[in-house]
Amino acid sequence: MNTEIITIGDEILIGQIVDSNSAFMARELNKAGFWVHQITSVSDNEVHISQAINEAMQRTDIVLVTGGLGPTKDDITKQTLCKLFDTELVFSEEVLHTIEARFSTMKGVMNELTRNQAYVPRNSTVIQNRAGSAPIMWFEREGKILVSMPGVPSEMEWAMINEIIPRLQKRFNTPALIHKTLLVTGFPESQLAITIEDWENSLPEFIKLAYLPSFGLVKLRLSGSLPDKAKLESIMNAKIAELRPILGNSIFAEEDLPLEVIIGNLLKEKGITLSTAESCTGGNIARLITSVAGSSAYFKGSVVAYNNEVKEQLLGVSAEDLKQLGAVSQEVVEQMAKGIMCLTNSDIAVATSGIAGPDGGTPEKPVGIVWIAVCTKEKTISRKYQYGNGSRDRNTARASLSAFVMLKEMLENEKV
Amino acid sequence: MNTEIITIGDEILIGQIVDSNSAFMARELNKAGFWVHQITSVSDNEVHISQAINEAMQRTDIVLVTGGLGPTKDDITKQTLCKLFDTELVFSEEVLHTIEARFSTMKGVMNELTRNQAYVPRNSTVIQNRAGSAPIMWFEREGKILVSMPGVPSEMEWAMINEIIPRLQKRFNTPALIHKTLLVTGFPESQLAITIEDWENSLPEFIKLAYLPSFGLVKLRLSGSLPDKAKLESIMNAKIAELRPILGNSIFAEEDLPLEVIIGNLLKEKGITLSTAESCTGGNIARLITSVAGSSAYFKGSVVAYNNEVKEQLLGVSAEDLKQLGAVSQEVVEQMAKGIMCLTNSDIAVATSGIAGPDGGTPEKPVGIVWIAVCTKEKTISRKYQYGNGSRDRNTARASLSAFVMLKEMLENEKV
Repeated sequence: MNTEIITIGDEILIGQIVDSNSAFMARELNKAGFWVHQITSVSDNEVHISQAINEAMQRTDIVLVTGGLGPTKDDITKQTLCKLFDTELVFSEEVLHTIEARFSTMKGVMNELTRNQAYVPRNSTVIQNRAGSAPIMWFEREGKILVSMPGVPSEMEWAMINEIIPRLQKRFNTPALIHKTLLVTGFPESQLAITIEDWENSLPEFIKLAYLPSFGLVKLRLSGSLPDKAKLESIMNAKIAELRPILGNSIFAEEDLPLEVIIGNLLKEKGITLSTAESCTGGNIARLITSVAGSSAYFKGSVVAYNNEVKEQLLGVSAEDLKQLGAVSQEVVEQMAKGIMCLTNSDIAVATSGIAGPDGGTPEKPVGIVWIAVCTKEKTISRKYQYGNGSRDRNTARASLSAFVMLKEMLENEKV
Repeated sequence: MNTEIITIGDEILIGQIVDSNSAFMARELNKAGFWVHQITSVSDNEVHISQAINEAMQRTDIVLVTGGLGPTKDDITKQTLCKLFDTELVFSEEVLHTIEARFSTMKGVMNELTRNQAYVPRNSTVIQNRAGSAPIMWFEREGKILVSMPGVPSEMEWAMINEIIPRLQKRFNTPALIHKTLLVTGFPESQLAITIEDWENSLPEFIKLAYLPSFGLVKLRLSGSLPDKAKLESIMNAKIAELRPILGNSIFAEEDLPLEVIIGNLLKEKGITLSTAESCTGGNIARLITSVAGSSAYFKGSVVAYNNEVKEQLLGVSAEDLKQLGAVSQEVVEQMAKGIMCLTNSDIAVATSGIAGPDGGTPEKPVGIVWIAVCTKEKTISRKYQYGNGSRDRNTARASLSAFVMLKEMLENEKV
């Protein structure tokens, strides 16, 4: 079953925000067996919104729209939909009560603009929004469906999960659609393609392969579609089994989970604790680890030692080594890892020290150089990486990825 | 001058990645005086790509396309463009040399797939890609322009800044288009709209206002367009001057910069140093601060004290207070701030302690409660926030924003 997504908002078209709503919606639709045929972003303009909706409703049966439902003047989606579906706004006491109840829980103060949110189109099914004050509207025309949702991510996400997807699934019989993703490290995209060329050529017609490179990691995504879901699942599993001996340890994981979740699961399984000492990654590894709910069970803490003084005084790095070898050196990064492990009494620790750029590079230590160490009570491993001339953000992201790769190696190969 | 953006890739339509390319392109186009009329995302499918390009070229004069230029089989944009523009691929020695030179610098190994990137359409202007191996292609048809760029963000960004925008500016005389953004804190969107209603009604036709709410902050964006740029600038400045007395201290900044850049600039101006002690924000404040190039000049470091042991032993928080009052309390967060200030010898420090969720809440301390303290040698301020029932990521983002608001207050109102 084909769908299309339309996101409305001037802020998208001038690039002030990244449209992450459509990615969320596409992901949830896919999981439920709906294929997204096109995503279109248009401005808060009546003519343009109408045109985009009409075109999408010609191409496909289900159109999901977000944005332009706020209480302020620049938001005109509701009025535009009324014209498009030849109806008018009426005041809904029911919607008002929901909004009032919400405001009372949040101890907020209702005002005239919020009250106006209770005006809804007569000829639509109004779905109560339990995550905000803008209503969700479900229109039908000649067997085709159009749903309008707020553009605030938390409200859209609530609506998709709790209302839209369940209603669509109830209405349509969707075919089996399975995605499987492998996270592969250590290969540039083209080298990976050559390595698995014969295997790729052996894939049946109904399984498509895509390469998604991202900061030193390639996601290999297999997308299969067959009427018989069990059969599809078994064929896809068999193809993945063939790939394992070809790629070996380069397969970081066989599920499309964030690396910090995979590392967190390993730590939980083994019942051990982690700490980090970060220089060039500036707290990014700690932030990723703690972004996982329940990480307090295995994460002790971090020292972001952005300053040599802090490296010396908190982590016990040798002042002599800092002076002689510099902060970006094997000796210093190993001392940082051991220092934070002792300081926080953790079982395993990781440390980073490098030059994220854009300034601070030298001919011997150019921008993009990063030393990473992982240690346990028994063993320390350290490695030098050189990431080419990417931006500061990319170098930080790559160093964090490399830290996770080294952590995983240590967790899997050594007794911790 | 109107443009459209088309991003190609199955990974966008199944929601595996967020299409951040189009936001970057839209921002750069806007700055250069080009208006983006529509953004469309389509799959790696020849029929669909062709259809989207033909439709866009009917609506507008300039179409920028990214994606589908990788060396692997799923990438079919180049072949599709050849059919669309009635031409064929020819081997370019010049492109090959650029690719070879790049590989030699990066110490990479060329392979057959990389070599194939040197095949380019005969009837297009090929722009050499100095940031990767996929060529950039500029087509023209009946006075309309289509440019195809790689989807890898670093390559697209390089192409936009160094080649596409300069060539477009040379070709067209674009009208003045000015955006001004104010960052406003402390108001829900609708309350802000009521507060500035009279002012909003007084705006001339050629200045549009948009409200962009995000995690406790509303960005107010004025977009103006007039043939006379100097006149437009002066009218817009006058309107903003009228707004200042209405909003007062709620205006965090009058430029659309990340808060961490604004805080960094204040610290640099005053020549003082910062450190952070983070519990519930898990390193996010440190990561934001260090994401700014040159932050090592004013950022000393951070302790991510995810564990009570770490709060006690590293930050010197009273064991008694931790036990009696709990980690999420005014006393503890103030001790954390003072602890990290001493430990790193910084001039100002900020600390956070709260319950990010989804678990760990109690009736007295529900999910979303966060205590934040900011201290200098002279003064300590602390405040309790309650963010409602958002996700873990949102609570972390909101707490980081509140920390920046409190830091700015302290930096502006007190002698540091």
